Amino acid sequence: MIVWIDGEFLETDAARIGIDDRGFLLGDGVFDTFAIRDGAPKDFAAHMARLRAAAAAFGIPVPFADGEAEQAASDLAARNGVVRGAGRLTISRGPGPRGLLPPDPAQPFVLLAVAPAAPAPAPVRMLLSDVARSSAALSSRHKTLSYIDNVEARRRAALAGCGEALMLNERGEIACASAANIFWIADGALRTPSLDCGVLAGITRANLLRAAPDLGLAVEEGRYGLAALDAARAVFLANSVLGIAPVAALTGGGRERAWEGDAEMLAALSARA
Amino acid sequence: MIVWIDGEFLETDAARIGIDDRGFLLGDGVFDTFAIRDGAPKDFAAHMARLRAAAAAFGIPVPFADGEAEQAASDLAARNGVVRGAGRLTISRGPGPRGLLPPDPAQPFVLLAVAPAAPAPAPVRMLLSDVARSSAALSSRHKTLSYIDNVEARRRAALAGCGEALMLNERGEIACASAANIFWIADGALRTPSLDCGVLAGITRANLLRAAPDLGLAVEEGRYGLAALDAARAVFLANSVLGIAPVAALTGGGRERAWEGDAEMLAALSARA
Repeated sequence: MIVWIDGEFLETDAARIGIDDRGFLLGDGVFDTFAIRDGAPKDFAAHMARLRAAAAAFGIPVPFADGEAEQAASDLAARNGVVRGAGRLTISRGPGPRGLLPPDPAQPFVLLAVAPAAPAPAPVRMLLSDVARSSAALSSRHKTLSYIDNVEARRRAALAGCGEALMLNERGEIACASAANIFWIADGALRTPSLDCGVLAGITRANLLRAAPDLGLAVEEGRYGLAALDAARAVFLANSVLGIAPVAALTGGGRERAWEGDAEMLAALSARA
Repeated sequence: MIVWIDGEFLETDAARIGIDDRGFLLGDGVFDTFAIRDGAPKDFAAHMARLRAAAAAFGIPVPFADGEAEQAASDLAARNGVVRGAGRLTISRGPGPRGLLPPDPAQPFVLLAVAPAAPAPAPVRMLLSDVARSSAALSSRHKTLSYIDNVEARRRAALAGCGEALMLNERGEIACASAANIFWIADGALRTPSLDCGVLAGITRANLLRAAPDLGLAVEEGRYGLAALDAARAVFLANSVLGIAPVAALTGGGRERAWEGDAEMLAALSARA
């Protein structure tokens, strides 16, 4: 595979990071992940806006123009023969001396990589995770290189034979999966945790909330405990790469819940994801 | 400088990390930082126990024996001419395919680096940070490569002309500085936030809590709001590299607090840190 690093196309094996990179040493960087459809990045303007907001929140300079990155993503997809797949644009703050204080100015390190699409996911079984999501942490509101809590939630889910994790915040409210927003359909509404639960503002999440009324669904964002899922007809996950993935069941905490699903509505939502 | 990577001594410039390293992409790794005194790592057994506990919490294998790392730290200090300074031992989970799910087995990447001691810190002015510490997150209880919230607290403190940040948890309780535990002396007691406030179990913290009764101080760990600092005679920070650093003042949130300090007691504690 070929990657784009600091404006150059390089073979993956030839690409390296310095051992003083703060992305490596401190998780000090941000990223965004987007779908590639027909060889081009999907919803790229929205992803760039989110990436720039994340970078700004942590004072990390973005050393390229949006159009440059969009062109690079298409070029990279073509060079790697990726027509349908995913891309990830990573900005580390770059090298720095010992300690937490960032160098000023920073010399950010940029990595863009693409991959072909994975097969569409089967309905997923989720583990109710004991790894908490923080509603208060700045890093809960942005896609940063500091992702180890979500990694651990995903790892424990896999150890329990589940494909994803349901993370609750410190108040016990439903937050998200390890790498996706969660939604459910209940009482004629599309429900999802509000951002103040410690939820990433998903691009697909926004697309779905915008589309729902056209499909006859009210939109309700709020703070929900686990009991809110009892009324659900269908539960699903969404992110930019997956689109929509139905949840078959939730296990853990001494209970098992299963949902019948609503294939027709999920197909309609999927078309708008 | 020379570093120790996966068991080999290498010049820093020759040392590189692959772009598929999960430490870089996801903050998926752990580390520990220790003092070097007389050319040897201080309290190394305690640091290794903490590092192993962190690695175990996230299922990351530790691919070396404690004695091997201890010897490498001394050798590395000698090769770099560091008699008094600091060392950092980093274990990333290593390379992996796209996505959060860790490869099994992982091939961890190990980096050990040392640096000469920085000058002893002047009494520090702290900024009351608006970057929250999570009391619930697994990553709050371990030293992981996912450190961006603390980086940001430190960065905002520097922007406000302060040398450190005081982080509160989501309940508004005092937690810690960006890279140190916090302590204060009040009513004849040494007080510090309890670990359930979202505090790292500092090795120096443990040394100080053990030493305090010998110095005539009661030890009180608990959940404290900011008002608890009003009764303090002296406030200080502690970590393995700094030892003890007095706090001169806390600013932010529309208030300024200053403390006279207690040079004699801090010197006595410092000798036991």
